[in-house]
Amino acid sequence: MVNKSKIIEKLTLISGSENVLTEPEDMISLSYDGTPLYEMLPLCAISPQTVEQISQILKAAHELEFKVVPRGTGTGLSGGAIPVANSVIVMMHHWDKIIEIDEKNLTVTVQPGVITQDLHTAVEACGLFYPPDPGSMKICTIGGNVAENSGGLRGLKYGVTSSYVMGLQAVLPEGSIVSFGNKCVKNVSGINMKDIFVGSEGILGIITEIVLKLIPKPQDQKTMLAFFNTIEDAGETVSAIIAEKIIPCTLEFLDQTTIKCVEDFAKIGLPIEYEALLLIEVDGPSIIVEDEAARIIDICKKHGAQNVEFARNSEEAEKLKTARRAAFTALARVKPTTILEDATVPRDKVAPMLRQIQIIAKKYNLLFGTFGHAGDGNLHPTCLTDERLTDEMERVELAFEEIFKVALEMGGTLTGEHGIGVAKKKFLAKFEMPANLQLMKKIKTTLDPNNILNPGKVFDL
Amino acid sequence: MVNKSKIIEKLTLISGSENVLTEPEDMISLSYDGTPLYEMLPLCAISPQTVEQISQILKAAHELEFKVVPRGTGTGLSGGAIPVANSVIVMMHHWDKIIEIDEKNLTVTVQPGVITQDLHTAVEACGLFYPPDPGSMKICTIGGNVAENSGGLRGLKYGVTSSYVMGLQAVLPEGSIVSFGNKCVKNVSGINMKDIFVGSEGILGIITEIVLKLIPKPQDQKTMLAFFNTIEDAGETVSAIIAEKIIPCTLEFLDQTTIKCVEDFAKIGLPIEYEALLLIEVDGPSIIVEDEAARIIDICKKHGAQNVEFARNSEEAEKLKTARRAAFTALARVKPTTILEDATVPRDKVAPMLRQIQIIAKKYNLLFGTFGHAGDGNLHPTCLTDERLTDEMERVELAFEEIFKVALEMGGTLTGEHGIGVAKKKFLAKFEMPANLQLMKKIKTTLDPNNILNPGKVFDL
Repeated sequence: MVNKSKIIEKLTLISGSENVLTEPEDMISLSYDGTPLYEMLPLCAISPQTVEQISQILKAAHELEFKVVPRGTGTGLSGGAIPVANSVIVMMHHWDKIIEIDEKNLTVTVQPGVITQDLHTAVEACGLFYPPDPGSMKICTIGGNVAENSGGLRGLKYGVTSSYVMGLQAVLPEGSIVSFGNKCVKNVSGINMKDIFVGSEGILGIITEIVLKLIPKPQDQKTMLAFFNTIEDAGETVSAIIAEKIIPCTLEFLDQTTIKCVEDFAKIGLPIEYEALLLIEVDGPSIIVEDEAARIIDICKKHGAQNVEFARNSEEAEKLKTARRAAFTALARVKPTTILEDATVPRDKVAPMLRQIQIIAKKYNLLFGTFGHAGDGNLHPTCLTDERLTDEMERVELAFEEIFKVALEMGGTLTGEHGIGVAKKKFLAKFEMPANLQLMKKIKTTLDPNNILNPGKVFDL
Repeated sequence: MVNKSKIIEKLTLISGSENVLTEPEDMISLSYDGTPLYEMLPLCAISPQTVEQISQILKAAHELEFKVVPRGTGTGLSGGAIPVANSVIVMMHHWDKIIEIDEKNLTVTVQPGVITQDLHTAVEACGLFYPPDPGSMKICTIGGNVAENSGGLRGLKYGVTSSYVMGLQAVLPEGSIVSFGNKCVKNVSGINMKDIFVGSEGILGIITEIVLKLIPKPQDQKTMLAFFNTIEDAGETVSAIIAEKIIPCTLEFLDQTTIKCVEDFAKIGLPIEYEALLLIEVDGPSIIVEDEAARIIDICKKHGAQNVEFARNSEEAEKLKTARRAAFTALARVKPTTILEDATVPRDKVAPMLRQIQIIAKKYNLLFGTFGHAGDGNLHPTCLTDERLTDEMERVELAFEEIFKVALEMGGTLTGEHGIGVAKKKFLAKFEMPANLQLMKKIKTTLDPNNILNPGKVFDL
């Protein structure tokens, strides 16, 4: 049995009482994150201000036998930041500094609590570009992005968060401080430990500083919308664009349910009679962008696009992309509970996967809206449901299991960008190769022998 | 004491006598790799043909207490493939198949024994591109590239091997077979174990299959040579090109010693009176390449280039790049022993680092030629010496230690692309943060508790 008052006393010694939260209303606001269906009250929360304080918190966790759950802004969609039994939440909101933008080495050094969009704004002011743009970028933190290896709309051309992490500092579960990588483009000194923390979902260490790679900001972009009568036409268009060796920065898909919800929510004049929409953006030097956009229009038309529209200016382009980013919010208005998944397949399997999702939804009599990053195969089948309906929730679970099974059979993965967390750990346990899972667990146990840091996420030991 | 005849008997059972080498002349040819100063005879060598055979070899190693050293074509420059005491060499030459080029998903699946240049040729025939191009690409294998996380001339724009590894299969030291990643561009299912094998120098597993990312082949390229009176002018030119937001695919530096040796070796008419040469290549759409090349010429001239030449055609460009690739070979002709290092610094530190190398060479009265990837800060200070001269070799060691120290003080790394191996493990032990080193060792011990696989490489336990 943990001694809560002793823990609070110790945490107050570490960071001062102004940085320790204990009130019930605060605990309630920390009891959930962006993931539906999961919640738990923590013991209390602490806002450390130095790396040493984080180290002391972890050492205190061993001494006083509490668990530690790190948290950014809690936008995660797999439950990574949800408290566990006897846990203290480590809040990173003090860590909001952009330490250095290094224009000569094309790097930015940040604290983990920086909001992703603030990072975009800051580097773009220097003519530089940090491509990863998760849907929640206006409110999520870069530390959470690194911990989840977040993706976004630009993954097809520019990769995901891990493609940009050059170095990081982290506090290990037992309290020691490590630092791997730096501003060197090439660095093979010792085992690559840096990348094990990227996407580690807060179970291997608390990330305290990050060096990110930047690239020059693309000169221009052009945004298009193409509407299709069938999912297959949209899927073939995606393949045909890539086969023409054009790599758009964004190649997003919305199905009819999502189109309708987005239009109902955002009122931007989307036609709602089509089965599928592709939002396509190319970027780069102006002259290349013009050429690629023209070729894409041709490809869309050749593959059955009923209607292709250009954004006439950057405001209109922004509006279209904002509408796409609003897909989750728009769908969430329909029913009390919205379960967003991110089963992912190789990009040539997007059309068959989308069709399978429709078949599975029908089989279990459920309402699904599906949107996502068609260009990189990262789909978001989203079930609109009501967690109070026990019978329906059982069918939801069966439907998602079937979706994951089909995705894996197509050479896909359980999660493209949201992580396993608590929401998908039973599927990881079921579908992952035992030898793979065993190795992951060994790594966790090696770094965190007492299972102090974010236990029960990704897998149970 | 290991029982050699029992080991040979067991290995013969596993792979057949035609796949087991025991003759002294074979053992001599396997006693060294591309690294000077190190050699040791193995017990014998085996050429497995299946993943199961590799697993059986590792299990036999536990039973019969021998060590296992995996080997591609032995081109490594840090001693990763050099035998250790009581070791069996696992040769991967049977693993030479390109399994699939997937044009829809822009991936290639290969066995580890494929020669890197053969991979280039095969994918380029499909209009695709695998950028990493280590200096030894005509003879090295892709498995070795993954194990060392090899770089090359195109690292600045296109990254290194790790930027392209999407998935891999490996046999762990205890014999179990794992497989991480796949053709999905986004994949965050579980802890990222894939990247721990990239650059693991054969100490964590034997890689048996690799899925690599491809990109469309750039339409055009343009190659330039610029000559400078001082290293500083060349260094400032590098910074100025990047500051203009131009990212060449190649930005190579040769110092005067290297220029002279290359000219003497390749006779391509390089002027030998300048202190520094930059070989610059831009690639991409023709119209952009023309524009960037013109802007680079301007920048070079503004920063003191005495002479700037275009390659007039692709043959001439190839000749220039071949000359650059011959730098190591050309330097190696001068003295009996050539020690090539790859101390690396952030790119804005290239000029001060080059100057420091000159100062250190003078201080220890040694002959150095320095060349390397100026665009990504990955330099190759190369000492031309004679291992039979004990006194000189002591000074060589002191000089390199000082070079590493200076590089680290500038925010650099011990090795940009060659790895630690045996050649640099004393420097890793000396300069790495103890907590970092301890974590690396813990990972090794977790995966290989009996220290069977390539022991004594990277660090001693």
